Amino acid sequence: MQTWRINVRNQTLTREAIPPSWEHLGGRGLLARILVDETPATCEPLGPKNKLIFAPGLLVGHRLSSCDRISVGAKSPLTNGVKESNAGGRTGLQLTYLGIKALVIEDKPAGDGWWLLHLSADGARFEPADEFAGMGVYEAAPLLLEKYGSKVAISLIGPGGEMELSAAGIQNIDKDGVPSRISARGGLGAVMGSKKLKAIIIDSSAGEKPPIVDMPAFRKAQKAFNKALAEHPQIAVYTDFGTAAMTKMCNGLGAMPTRNFSSGEFEGAEKISGEYMRQLLLKRGGESSTTHACMAGCTIRCSNVFGDDDGKSIVSPLEYETIGLMGSNLGIDSLDAIARLNWQVNDLGLDSIEIGAALGVAADAGLLEWGDGQRALELMEEMRAGTPLGRILGSGALTTGKVLGVERVPAVKGQAMSAYEPRVIKGTGVTFATSPQGADHTCGLTIRAKVDHLNPEGQVALSRTAQFSMAGYDTLGACIFAGFGFAATPETIRDLLVARYGLDVDAGILAQLGKETLELEREFNRLAGFTAADDRLPEWMTREQLPPHNTVFDVPEAEMDAIFD
Amino acid sequence: MQTWRINVRNQTLTREAIPPSWEHLGGRGLLARILVDETPATCEPLGPKNKLIFAPGLLVGHRLSSCDRISVGAKSPLTNGVKESNAGGRTGLQLTYLGIKALVIEDKPAGDGWWLLHLSADGARFEPADEFAGMGVYEAAPLLLEKYGSKVAISLIGPGGEMELSAAGIQNIDKDGVPSRISARGGLGAVMGSKKLKAIIIDSSAGEKPPIVDMPAFRKAQKAFNKALAEHPQIAVYTDFGTAAMTKMCNGLGAMPTRNFSSGEFEGAEKISGEYMRQLLLKRGGESSTTHACMAGCTIRCSNVFGDDDGKSIVSPLEYETIGLMGSNLGIDSLDAIARLNWQVNDLGLDSIEIGAALGVAADAGLLEWGDGQRALELMEEMRAGTPLGRILGSGALTTGKVLGVERVPAVKGQAMSAYEPRVIKGTGVTFATSPQGADHTCGLTIRAKVDHLNPEGQVALSRTAQFSMAGYDTLGACIFAGFGFAATPETIRDLLVARYGLDVDAGILAQLGKETLELEREFNRLAGFTAADDRLPEWMTREQLPPHNTVFDVPEAEMDAIFD
Repeated sequence: MQTWRINVRNQTLTREAIPPSWEHLGGRGLLARILVDETPATCEPLGPKNKLIFAPGLLVGHRLSSCDRISVGAKSPLTNGVKESNAGGRTGLQLTYLGIKALVIEDKPAGDGWWLLHLSADGARFEPADEFAGMGVYEAAPLLLEKYGSKVAISLIGPGGEMELSAAGIQNIDKDGVPSRISARGGLGAVMGSKKLKAIIIDSSAGEKPPIVDMPAFRKAQKAFNKALAEHPQIAVYTDFGTAAMTKMCNGLGAMPTRNFSSGEFEGAEKISGEYMRQLLLKRGGESSTTHACMAGCTIRCSNVFGDDDGKSIVSPLEYETIGLMGSNLGIDSLDAIARLNWQVNDLGLDSIEIGAALGVAADAGLLEWGDGQRALELMEEMRAGTPLGRILGSGALTTGKVLGVERVPAVKGQAMSAYEPRVIKGTGVTFATSPQGADHTCGLTIRAKVDHLNPEGQVALSRTAQFSMAGYDTLGACIFAGFGFAATPETIRDLLVARYGLDVDAGILAQLGKETLELEREFNRLAGFTAADDRLPEWMTREQLPPHNTVFDVPEAEMDAIFD
Repeated sequence: MQTWRINVRNQTLTREAIPPSWEHLGGRGLLARILVDETPATCEPLGPKNKLIFAPGLLVGHRLSSCDRISVGAKSPLTNGVKESNAGGRTGLQLTYLGIKALVIEDKPAGDGWWLLHLSADGARFEPADEFAGMGVYEAAPLLLEKYGSKVAISLIGPGGEMELSAAGIQNIDKDGVPSRISARGGLGAVMGSKKLKAIIIDSSAGEKPPIVDMPAFRKAQKAFNKALAEHPQIAVYTDFGTAAMTKMCNGLGAMPTRNFSSGEFEGAEKISGEYMRQLLLKRGGESSTTHACMAGCTIRCSNVFGDDDGKSIVSPLEYETIGLMGSNLGIDSLDAIARLNWQVNDLGLDSIEIGAALGVAADAGLLEWGDGQRALELMEEMRAGTPLGRILGSGALTTGKVLGVERVPAVKGQAMSAYEPRVIKGTGVTFATSPQGADHTCGLTIRAKVDHLNPEGQVALSRTAQFSMAGYDTLGACIFAGFGFAATPETIRDLLVARYGLDVDAGILAQLGKETLELEREFNRLAGFTAADDRLPEWMTREQLPPHNTVFDVPEAEMDAIFD
């Protein structure tokens, strides 16, 4: 495995050996290491000194169920801190087949033209891409697949990334060629836009699977992991209902973000639940599908295809976070309306969480009525057109609040909260507050813990454990749901790493990787100027009582400040 | 002297004795002390925990030339750090006559209505002010003077403050009743707007001059100060040409901000110079005046009245910073065009530096052509109307750059630079970078120092001395130009303080006050989460060469980090 270092100004590729300190890392952990090693922490996120890095996780390359994720990272233009955002799709697998452990994209071009970066066993080449400029990803991806072959992996940006909007992500095509696997969070699409790359094409046809040191041991561990995954009761729930299974659970707990986080209970929750969606899709048929895999080999298949009344696909997938942020958070109780918003936000290459939160803030400013999906679609068109209002919203919830004069912004470190109300799921509130990434449930969700989520006691420890695990999984390239299997058979992680790499690691490796990753991320943020003052939920959440439990966020600050000590 | 503590939620006044640690402070130093003592540094700037504080300087109350300034402070919504912004006019004098050393405005009202706060020897009362809501300050001030008497002092906000725009300041009426003495910087008008106060009326008719411990000694020191001031050659320059005398000097040094800080030399400098303006105003006559005092007793009279072709006043005053930021920085070489922009920005109650910088960034984004004053006026109308674009611009240069996708933003800690190019006047660059206030020439201008401004060596020490002096003057309530007198007779500061208060101070008192003030301000910022990473000029200024000298900002970061050690 190598580092492929691309300079977009000179359009050159340099292949380098992996330094020893990078070897035992992958995905999120490797990104953090490279950022600390190479990127000036105070650099302008959209300037020439920032680097955009793609790093497959440690376990990527073998179609282990749910373990082929790609991590993308840079200094974030949204948070101004460390950023990793991972996704499924083909990108991780094919980079690995080319032997690329880290793709490091550097500098900025002098001109204004758009470019494609094409990677294959022959190396890298740049091709002019002005013909694709301004295109939504749903238009661009099929054209690119036609031009470069249906088997290639593609990471591309939409108009949002081209406009360098802080809510822009990077879309990765899934195993079926659909560009909806987004490295959504933190504005990485804007970083890619600043480097004038519309798309990265990865053709691994002349590549090969990465070597395995001890194949029998690897297969044995894989089998144990697969079995544990298949037997976990939660997996069947995700297969049937997708992540939308979370709607009823969250609403039942009073933790469903509703009308810009002003309530934890949404009267329309039933109609945007996973159970309702499943029945709807089964009835609609056609292209609709209640279950779908985003990566080859995934046995969970939590994705879906949301079809309209005629069974024609509106969007794939429709997931809980989007339902929470673009549904209940906007007072919208129609899955069709949410699906259409989801298609727009995907096509623009924007983060549905950040945009949903920004729209909620905009609603508080009077720019849309709660529940008005049509108006929300019009606001998406403002983003597409790059109007001042569209650019405000596309800059994320915090900027939207600042510009429109709304103080109630659900964000930490400049990044909007995902769909778990932190005044109720307080452990997740601790994660939102203290994660170096900004508010993000994938950094340490605690909702499944058997605790009183409303009680501030013990939440810091709960969050810490979850944050170590998640940073570990993100370093492995494992999906959050692969954790159901690994949690039941933790030794398989060790066994897989030993069999794959011959590494000398023990059963605590997941937490060790997580701890190392978080330490590196916190070091980067420290160098970038972050302090404990940034590890806070918005002040209004400590003051405004949230119905129905009428709670505030009350985990003591001093306890949070000691979370990683 | 007392603290008057106003709670805007309960509409109550509490009068308190001055704590011992506040006694030797006033103005900027006292604000910093109160912010550290009372305001949670991580609070939301527009939330209920922020406090808006008015504090006259230590020397205010005796019509000492140029020494009756009012300091206003709070946690800044623009920088998120400590903020003091001082102005001339009547406010400082009349608060002092009422015995108010600090007016501390707390909390937020529950309702949406606007209020006037009326202060007099009878105490404080609130009056509904919805009839004034939305009014520009030039419309509101005469109505308020008519209603409350022509002798009262008034501090009020314009539509910008009502909209809680981060570039909003607080206007104070001058000795002639004109509301153009703005505590401009850092968004204090937005803080006042968040407290739903349209105006503060200060009626000191039943008040009295503050006591003087040793009148003969005071008069003697005053006389020495006045003499030194009158004899300083620079004073005559300011009397004749106003602050606009700086245009030729700055342009000659190659330090005139031109077209969004892309050049230090403006081909139209002559036409926006103080010399040109003087001839123009003398020719125009009528209400035009080349010299004017903003405070009673000022002998410098650097202000002016800028009349049109018919001699009718367009705006008063027209000052260098506005000429730099709304003139050369926008490629505008017409004083009439600048004066009309200045009237608009004043009427809206916005900071002409921040707005000029934001318009420069907007021009880089293609929203106006360089030199197009008419288009700039249209953009002012967008601000007045509160359109999305207007709100972007009114949120300041940094937000404008973020939303519009422009990386070349001339700001530090979120606050736009005043009209001295820091790649040329490098000592002032150090001040911009390291001042706890964000970029601000009044925190330590070094342009008059007899040094090679382009040489990075020695600039840190130069800036430190200037920052101590300016923080000292701001604590005294002395105008930056009073410094010409005090610098020639430094013992008069000690003598005035000893005679006025009986304080036990020595001739080093100015720097001592400055040092104490800066330490408090840095402490507040530290608690708010600021680090050395915030003490930096924008990265692009270290990389992009500025014509005509083709220099970058190259003062070593490590040296800057040690500036206050």
